[in-house]
Amino acid sequence: MRTPWGLILILATSISWAEAPAPGEVRIEHDLLGEKAIPASALYGVQTARALENFQISGRNLSDYPELVDGFVYTKIAAARANTDVGKMDKDVRKAIEAGGMAILAGKYRDQFPIDPFQGGAGTSTNMNANEVMANAALLETGHSIGDYHVVEPHDDLNMSQSTNDSYPTALKVAILMNNDAMVTELEALVAAFRAKGNAFIDILKMGRTEMQDAVPMTVGQEFHAFAAALESEIAIIRSYEKPLLQLNMGGTAIGTGLNAPAGYAGKVARHLSKLTDKDFVVADDLIAATWDQQAFLSASSANRSLAVKLSKIASDLILLSSGPRAGLGEINLPPVQPGSSIMPGKVNPVMAELVNVVAFRVIGNDTSVMLSAKAGQLQLNAYEPMEAMAILDSQRLMTNTMRTLREKCVDGITVNEATLAANIERTVGIVTALNPVIGYEAATELAKEAYASDKGILEVIREKGVLSEEQIDEILDPANLTGLDKRKYK
Amino acid sequence: MRTPWGLILILATSISWAEAPAPGEVRIEHDLLGEKAIPASALYGVQTARALENFQISGRNLSDYPELVDGFVYTKIAAARANTDVGKMDKDVRKAIEAGGMAILAGKYRDQFPIDPFQGGAGTSTNMNANEVMANAALLETGHSIGDYHVVEPHDDLNMSQSTNDSYPTALKVAILMNNDAMVTELEALVAAFRAKGNAFIDILKMGRTEMQDAVPMTVGQEFHAFAAALESEIAIIRSYEKPLLQLNMGGTAIGTGLNAPAGYAGKVARHLSKLTDKDFVVADDLIAATWDQQAFLSASSANRSLAVKLSKIASDLILLSSGPRAGLGEINLPPVQPGSSIMPGKVNPVMAELVNVVAFRVIGNDTSVMLSAKAGQLQLNAYEPMEAMAILDSQRLMTNTMRTLREKCVDGITVNEATLAANIERTVGIVTALNPVIGYEAATELAKEAYASDKGILEVIREKGVLSEEQIDEILDPANLTGLDKRKYK
Amino acid sequence: MRTPWGLILILATSISWAEAPAPGEVRIEHDLLGEKAIPASALYGVQTARALENFQISGRNLSDYPELVDGFVYTKIAAARANTDVGKMDKDVRKAIEAGGMAILAGKYRDQFPIDPFQGGAGTSTNMNANEVMANAALLETGHSIGDYHVVEPHDDLNMSQSTNDSYPTALKVAILMNNDAMVTELEALVAAFRAKGNAFIDILKMGRTEMQDAVPMTVGQEFHAFAAALESEIAIIRSYEKPLLQLNMGGTAIGTGLNAPAGYAGKVARHLSKLTDKDFVVADDLIAATWDQQAFLSASSANRSLAVKLSKIASDLILLSSGPRAGLGEINLPPVQPGSSIMPGKVNPVMAELVNVVAFRVIGNDTSVMLSAKAGQLQLNAYEPMEAMAILDSQRLMTNTMRTLREKCVDGITVNEATLAANIERTVGIVTALNPVIGYEAATELAKEAYASDKGILEVIREKGVLSEEQIDEILDPANLTGLDKRKYK
Amino acid sequence: MRTPWGLILILATSISWAEAPAPGEVRIEHDLLGEKAIPASALYGVQTARALENFQISGRNLSDYPELVDGFVYTKIAAARANTDVGKMDKDVRKAIEAGGMAILAGKYRDQFPIDPFQGGAGTSTNMNANEVMANAALLETGHSIGDYHVVEPHDDLNMSQSTNDSYPTALKVAILMNNDAMVTELEALVAAFRAKGNAFIDILKMGRTEMQDAVPMTVGQEFHAFAAALESEIAIIRSYEKPLLQLNMGGTAIGTGLNAPAGYAGKVARHLSKLTDKDFVVADDLIAATWDQQAFLSASSANRSLAVKLSKIASDLILLSSGPRAGLGEINLPPVQPGSSIMPGKVNPVMAELVNVVAFRVIGNDTSVMLSAKAGQLQLNAYEPMEAMAILDSQRLMTNTMRTLREKCVDGITVNEATLAANIERTVGIVTALNPVIGYEAATELAKEAYASDKGILEVIREKGVLSEEQIDEILDPANLTGLDKRKYK
Repeated sequence: MRTPWGLILILATSISWAEAPAPGEVRIEHDLLGEKAIPASALYGVQTARALENFQISGRNLSDYPELVDGFVYTKIAAARANTDVGKMDKDVRKAIEAGGMAILAGKYRDQFPIDPFQGGAGTSTNMNANEVMANAALLETGHSIGDYHVVEPHDDLNMSQSTNDSYPTALKVAILMNNDAMVTELEALVAAFRAKGNAFIDILKMGRTEMQDAVPMTVGQEFHAFAAALESEIAIIRSYEKPLLQLNMGGTAIGTGLNAPAGYAGKVARHLSKLTDKDFVVADDLIAATWDQQAFLSASSANRSLAVKLSKIASDLILLSSGPRAGLGEINLPPVQPGSSIMPGKVNPVMAELVNVVAFRVIGNDTSVMLSAKAGQLQLNAYEPMEAMAILDSQRLMTNTMRTLREKCVDGITVNEATLAANIERTVGIVTALNPVIGYEAATELAKEAYASDKGILEVIREKGVLSEEQIDEILDPANLTGLDKRKYK
Repeated sequence: MRTPWGLILILATSISWAEAPAPGEVRIEHDLLGEKAIPASALYGVQTARALENFQISGRNLSDYPELVDGFVYTKIAAARANTDVGKMDKDVRKAIEAGGMAILAGKYRDQFPIDPFQGGAGTSTNMNANEVMANAALLETGHSIGDYHVVEPHDDLNMSQSTNDSYPTALKVAILMNNDAMVTELEALVAAFRAKGNAFIDILKMGRTEMQDAVPMTVGQEFHAFAAALESEIAIIRSYEKPLLQLNMGGTAIGTGLNAPAGYAGKVARHLSKLTDKDFVVADDLIAATWDQQAFLSASSANRSLAVKLSKIASDLILLSSGPRAGLGEINLPPVQPGSSIMPGKVNPVMAELVNVVAFRVIGNDTSVMLSAKAGQLQLNAYEPMEAMAILDSQRLMTNTMRTLREKCVDGITVNEATLAANIERTVGIVTALNPVIGYEAATELAKEAYASDKGILEVIREKGVLSEEQIDEILDPANLTGLDKRKYK
Repeated sequence: MRTPWGLILILATSISWAEAPAPGEVRIEHDLLGEKAIPASALYGVQTARALENFQISGRNLSDYPELVDGFVYTKIAAARANTDVGKMDKDVRKAIEAGGMAILAGKYRDQFPIDPFQGGAGTSTNMNANEVMANAALLETGHSIGDYHVVEPHDDLNMSQSTNDSYPTALKVAILMNNDAMVTELEALVAAFRAKGNAFIDILKMGRTEMQDAVPMTVGQEFHAFAAALESEIAIIRSYEKPLLQLNMGGTAIGTGLNAPAGYAGKVARHLSKLTDKDFVVADDLIAATWDQQAFLSASSANRSLAVKLSKIASDLILLSSGPRAGLGEINLPPVQPGSSIMPGKVNPVMAELVNVVAFRVIGNDTSVMLSAKAGQLQLNAYEPMEAMAILDSQRLMTNTMRTLREKCVDGITVNEATLAANIERTVGIVTALNPVIGYEAATELAKEAYASDKGILEVIREKGVLSEEQIDEILDPANLTGLDKRKYK
Repeated sequence: MRTPWGLILILATSISWAEAPAPGEVRIEHDLLGEKAIPASALYGVQTARALENFQISGRNLSDYPELVDGFVYTKIAAARANTDVGKMDKDVRKAIEAGGMAILAGKYRDQFPIDPFQGGAGTSTNMNANEVMANAALLETGHSIGDYHVVEPHDDLNMSQSTNDSYPTALKVAILMNNDAMVTELEALVAAFRAKGNAFIDILKMGRTEMQDAVPMTVGQEFHAFAAALESEIAIIRSYEKPLLQLNMGGTAIGTGLNAPAGYAGKVARHLSKLTDKDFVVADDLIAATWDQQAFLSASSANRSLAVKLSKIASDLILLSSGPRAGLGEINLPPVQPGSSIMPGKVNPVMAELVNVVAFRVIGNDTSVMLSAKAGQLQLNAYEPMEAMAILDSQRLMTNTMRTLREKCVDGITVNEATLAANIERTVGIVTALNPVIGYEAATELAKEAYASDKGILEVIREKGVLSEEQIDEILDPANLTGLDKRKYK
C-alpha cells in the first residue's frame, strides 16, 4: 500500500498554478525570444506567458498580492500623467490608461495576474504582467479590443520613461504604505480594546512580577493600560520607519542615470503619485544610490518586526496570566472559542494568543528573508526585491488580520478572577515594602521573616499580631497609595 | 481618486478563505460549545467549522499542504490498525477508515481541508479537520451517508488512543520524510546535470579564483564537478538529519504518560506506520520528552537551510561566471529564458540563478521561524508545531520545484566561452607558480615582475624571451599537469 | 601524544576572568546571604564578589564595556542630584558621588568592574558593581577610606530612589547614544572619503551593471558618490531610530509604579541627565510599559543592522570591482596592506573589504540576539537586557573601528584602471541605447546585432562603417550626455 | 561636564589590543611589502606585525581562542610528519617543529598570538601567526635563537605543502571537535544531575500542563527525567553533525587542485592528524569542493543551536516552575545564589536559568553569523571562516561553562514544594479523566461540571458525595496508575 510520493507532490502542487490556457481561441504575440500563443481572452501577454512557464515554484500568484497590483496601477497612472505633462505621451493614451487602471482598482481583471511571485529577474515579470494587463484593460475600457496595441502598447506606453528598476520599487513602496494604513487602523482598534479593559479593571489589585517572582503590587488596569501604551508606541515606529519609503527613484530608469527619461519627468511623477495616494512622495537625492539601496524595505521590515516582537510579548503574557484554571496563575480568563481537547473534557486553550505567536514567528522569519535580500544587491541593482515584497506584504496582512481576530475573539472578552487576585494579595509578602513608612523598616523585615517561616501572608501576620487596624490596612491597600495609580493619566 | 485601502485589502483577502457555506441544505453538529450548522455536503464537521470562523488570517488553507494531509491519513490508518490489534477497535470500523483514507490518498475529498494553517491550539483544528473528513470519507466509501457517526465517529474512532499532541507531530514527520524523498530525487537529478556539464568541460582550462583574485589554474569541468560533489554531500545531511524524525510519540497521548492508550498500542502503531510508508519508525524512549521536544523539526529545518546555503552559493557563482557579456567575467553562458530588459536591447539576465537565491532567502527565513517555534515550548507541550509545519513543508516544496527548474531551464543549457578563458590563461600571471619546477623560482619571479610591469601575460613574456619552446609550454599547460586533473575520479 | 582537551580548555579560559583576590588583606562585607571576604584594596563589594563567583562564563568583563560604565556614572550622578533636589539626599553625599563619578569618567578605577557581562538577574550584578565602586570612589575622592559606608553607602545612597530595573536600561541608553556619536563621526568621515574619490573619478566612464549584466554607462565618480549617498542616509536612520532611547523609566523603580520614588524625582533625573550628556531625555508616558518594553533597544539594533547591511553591500562591490588583476573586472585597485598568499606570488587580497563583511555578519548575528532577548520579556520585566547591551555595544564598536580602518587602509588609496574601463566602453554593446536619438532605433538594433555576431564593440562597428564621425562619437560619449552627469549635484 | 565620547571610546578600546612593541631591542624582518621592525623577544614575525597594524577592531586576540591555536599546532605537526614521510622535509626540521608544537600545547608561548580574530584575508593572518610562532618555538626548543630561519623557516617549513586555504579549516575542525568533547562531558554531567533529581522526585504527583492549561497528572520525577532525556538526545545530534568535520581538504592547497602538494601527502596528513587527536579524519573526495564548501561549519553551528534551543526551553521551564513564591506556580525552588533585589527584601531570582537564556540567545545569534558567512563564499574559496571560527568556538565555550554553572549552582540544589503540588492535585479537575474507567464517562463529566461551578476540586466533590472510598481514591491517585510511571525505565 505504498504511494509514489513524488507523483502526489507534483500533482497536488501543480494544480494551483496551472492557469491552463482556455481551450479554444488563442492570439499570437512575440518578443525578442520569438512568438507565443496566448489565450485569446487573456489580458496578459507574451512576457507574462513566458514567466508562467519559467516560474512554477510556489503555487501562489501575483493576484494574492492585491496591494502590489494596486501599487503598479497608481505608479503607472502617475507616470502616464507625467509623460503627458512633458509632452511625451498623447492625452488620449493617458486617458485610456487611467480608465483601465481605475477599473482594476475597482476590482476588475484581478484574475489576470497569474505569475508566481517567486521569480528571478528583479521583478521584470511582474512589471511586464502589469504593463500587459493595464494595456489591455485600457483598450477594453475605451472600446477597443484586446491586443489593439497600436492604440495602447504594453511596453512603449505603459513602461514609458520607466524601467522595472524604478517602477517595481515604486509600486512596492505604494503597496507597503497602503498596508501600513490598514495595519495602523487595526493596531489603533487593538489599543482601544486594551484601554477599555484597563479602565474596567483599573482598581483591581494584583501582584506585579519581575523575573516571574512576586515583586510589588499594581492594578490589573495598570497592566492592561501598559499593554495599550506599549502597542501605541509601535504606531510611531511604523510611521517613523516609513520615511525612506517616501523617496522614489522614478526617473532614474535602468541604473539611476535617467537614460531615456525626459527632463522634469521625475518630479512630476512624484507629485502625481502623491496626489493619487495622499502620501508625500519625493524624488531621492541620488538616483543611482536609490536604485540599488534597499534601506526603505529593510526599515519597513524592521517596523514589522518591532510590532511582532511587541505582540508576541503581550500574547505570551496573556497565556501566562490565564494559565490554570486550577494549577496556574489564573488571574484572567480568555473567552473560549473552541474546545481545547477531547481527551481532557472542559479544557480551553489560549488559541488566539498562540495564533499571535505563530504569526509573530512568521513575521520575524520574513524579516530574515528581507535582510538577506537587502544584503544581496550587486553593483547598480538588487535583484531580490520580489522576495522583499512577499515577505513585507505577507507580514503586514498577517498582523492586520491577527490583530483584528485577537481583539474580537480574545481581548474584548477577557474577564478577571478577582478572588484569586485578592487571595494573592492576602498571601503575598511582597507588599511589605509598602509598610516601611508606617511601621519602620526593621519591624517590616521582622514581619516578612515571620510570614515566610510560617507560610502565611504578610497581612495575615499583621492582623494576628494586631500591628495595624483594619482602617490602616485599608489605607495601605488603597490602590492609589500602593501602586501610584493616577487615574487621570488614563483616558 | 483615493481609494479606501482597508476595504480593498479585506475584500481581496477575504475571498480566498471564504469557503462560504453553500446556499441550501445544512446539517447540525454540536460540540462542547454548542450547535453549529454545517453545509450538508461538507465532509468536515463542527470543529472544522469553528476553526474556519476563528482563523481568517492568511488566505491559505490546509489543502495547500497535501503532504500533511497524507501524513494524517497514514497516521490514522496505522492507529486504527493498532487499535484493532489490541482489541479496542472493531474490524469493520478499521476497514472503513482504511477505505476512506485510501480514497483521500488517491486524490478524493482534497478540497475538504479548508482551515487556515495559521492557527493557535497546537494543531488541534488540523487534527480535528482530518478526523472529521476521514470519518465521513470512511462513511461514504462504505456506502453510508455523511454524518452517520454511529458507524464511524470522528473523535471516538478516528482519534482513538490519540491526542492532537501525538498525532499532529507524527503526521508532520511522515509529511517531511515524504517531501525529503521528492527533494532528494530532484537533488540527485541536479547533481547529475552538473556532472554531465563537468564531463563536457573537463579539459577546458580556466583561472581559479580565491577572494575574487586570480589564483591558480583549474578546468571548468573541475569547477562543475565540485558543484555536483558539494550538492551531493547535502543528501547525506538530509538523511542524517532525518533520524529524530523517525522517533514517534504515538501512544503518549496528551502529555506522554500514555493516559487512555492501551498497552502495546504504541509499538504497533510504529510498525504499521513503517509498513505503510516504508520508513523505519520507532517509539521514542521517553514519551514525555518526545511530546514537547522539537529537535526533529529543528533538525529537518537545519537540513533545509544547509541545502539552501549550498544552492545559493552555487547560484551566485553562476551569476558571477556568466557576468558580462562584455564587461564581466563572461566565462559561461546561461540559456536565455526571457527578455531581460526592454530598455536595454539584447540584455539577458541570470533569472534562474536569481530564483534560486530568492528561494534560499525564503528557506533561511523559514528556518528562523522554525527556530523561534521550537524554542517557544512551555512545560509539557509546544503549541507552535503548525508554524514549523508550514515553514518546513514550504521550504521543501520550494526547493524541490526550484531545483527542477534550475536544472531544466539553466544548467542543462550552459555553454562555455572558450576563447575568453584561453585569453585569460594567456594573460594571467597566476600560472607562474607552475613554472617553478622548470625554470626555477627566481627566474619565475623575474618573469612575473616583468609581466606585471608590462601589462603582459606570463606566456607572452615567455614566448617573447624564448624561455620555453612551444612543446614545453604545451606540456606545462596540459590540464593534467597544471590542475592535478584525474579524470578517473569523475564518472 | 593525546591531550586532555577539557583540561586545556578550562585552564586557558579560567585565566582571564580570574581577578584572583590579591593575596593578603581582606575586608568583610555582608548581604542577605551572609558574609564575604573582599580584597582590601577592591572598590567593589560583596555583591560584585558573589557575581564573580556565580558567573564564570565568557572570560570577558564589564571593563570591556567602558561606555556602559560611563552610562551608569552619568545615571547615578543625575539620580543623586535629583534626590538632593527633592530633599532626600544630603548635599555632601551628592558631592562625594559626583567626585567619585568624575574620577571614573576621567579613567580612574576602570579595573574595578570585573564581573562577567554574561549574567542572569536582569543586570542586578552590573548595577551593584557600579553602586559599590561608585560608593568607594566617592569615599576615596573625598578623603575617606574604602568601606566607610556610613559616609556613602553603596545601596542606600547610590541606588536611592532607584531599582536595577530603571537604572540599568537608563545607563544602557546613555551608552548607546554615546556610541552612536562616535559611530556617526566615523560614518561621516567614511562618507567624505567616498565623496573625495567620487570627485576624483567624476569623468571616468564605465559600464553600469544590473544583475551582473552590462547595462548602460555611468561614471566611476557617480558610483562612488552613490556609495557616499547611501551611507549618508544611514545617519538619518541612526538618529531617527534613537527616539525611543531618549524615553526613560527612571522613577518607575521595580515595576514602574514608582514605589519608593519621591514625587517630582523622575522629571528631575531626566533633566539632570540631559544636561550631563547633552541629550534630550524625557520621562516615558507609561512607566509600567516603559519598564518591560524593549522597543528602544530593538530599534538601536535595527539601526546597527541597517548600517551593517549597507556596509556589506558596498564592501562586496569593492571586492567585485577590484577582482582580477587579469581574470576579473579589474576596474579599481585597492591598496595592498599585506601579502595575500605565499603560495601565489604577487597575489593581493581585498582584506579590508572582507573585514567589513566579517563585521557585518557579526552585527547581524548580534541583532538576532537582541531580537530574541527583546521577545523574551515576561510580565513586568525583561531579564535579558544584559544580552542586549553586549550585542548593541559590541556592534557599535566593531563598526566604528571598522569604518575607520576601511577608510584609512582602503578607500583613501583606491585607484582606477582607466584603460580597462575605456576598453570596456569600446567593446560594449550596451551604449547602443544612446544612439537611438541619432541614428534611429532600427539602425541601432542592426548595429547591435552585428556587434554581437562579430564579437566587436559597438563603437568599433560604427567606426568601421563610418556611421558617425569622431566628433559625433565624442559628443555621444561625453559623460554629461551619456550618464546624465550633473557635477553641480556633488560637492 | 560633557565628555569627548570618541576619545574615551578610542582610549578604552585601544588599550587592550595594543601589544605595544616593547621598548628596546627590535629585529628586522621583511616580506613582499618590505621591511618591518619586530620586538626582539617576539616569537611572531613580520606578517603578524602587519596584521596587528591592519586589524584593530575588537580588542580581542587569537590567544582568546586557545582551541584554535591547538588546532593549528596539531595540523602543522601532522603536515610536518607527512612531508617527512614523502621525503620533502628533513627529519630534524620535523623534530624541531614537534618540539615547538608540544611546548605550545603544554602552555608555553600562549601570549604570542596577539592578532585580532576579526580580520579579512580568509585567515591568512592567523595561519601566518601560527607559522611564525611555531617556527620560533621550534628554534627555541631546539637550542637555536629566535629568527634563525635558516634552520626552521616560518613559511617554507611550517607552511610546506599547505595553503591557508587548507590549513585554516583543518585547524578549525580540530578545534571544534576538541570543544565538542568538553561540551559533551558537561552535557553528560548535566543529564546526570537531572536524572538524580528525577529519581529523587519520582513519586511526587503534579499536574501536567499543555498550552499552560491544566492537563493530566504526572510526577515531578517524570518531568525531570524528560529534561534529562531531551538533553541526552542532543549528544547524538552533536556527534552526528560532526561527520563533515572529519573530512579534510589538506593537500588541496590553494584551490583544491593540489598544486605544490606531493603525491600521497594528503592521506598521510589525515592519518597523522587522526593519531594525534584520536579522531577519524579522512581526505575529502572532491578537494575543490572541500576548499569552498562550508557544510561542516554550518553543521557544527546547527548542532550548537539545537543544544541552545533545548537548554533555553528547559531553563524557561525552571523559571516557570519556580515562579512565586506566593503568586506563582511555586512547584520547585531554585537555590538562591545572590540577593535578587534590594528594593524588595527576600526576593530571589532565577538567575542561573536566566543566564542559560542569555547564553542561548548569544549562541543563536552566533549561528546567524555562521549562516551568513557560509553563504558568502565566492568561486573557489570562502573568505569568512574566521567569523565562523569565532562564532562556533565562542558558542561551545559559553555553553560548556554555562552547563557546569547551571548544574552546580542550580539543578543540584532544586527542591520541591510538595504541599503546593498536593493542593493542586486536590483542587484540579484535570484528573477526572482517570475516573472514567471507574465511574463511567457520564458520571465523571457531571462531577467535573459541579467542580467547576462550585470552584471545588474534583476530589473534594467526590469525597463530599461519597462517590468513592478513600481506598479507591488512593488507588486512583497511585502514581503508577495515574501517570503510567514505570520506574524500571529510569536508571
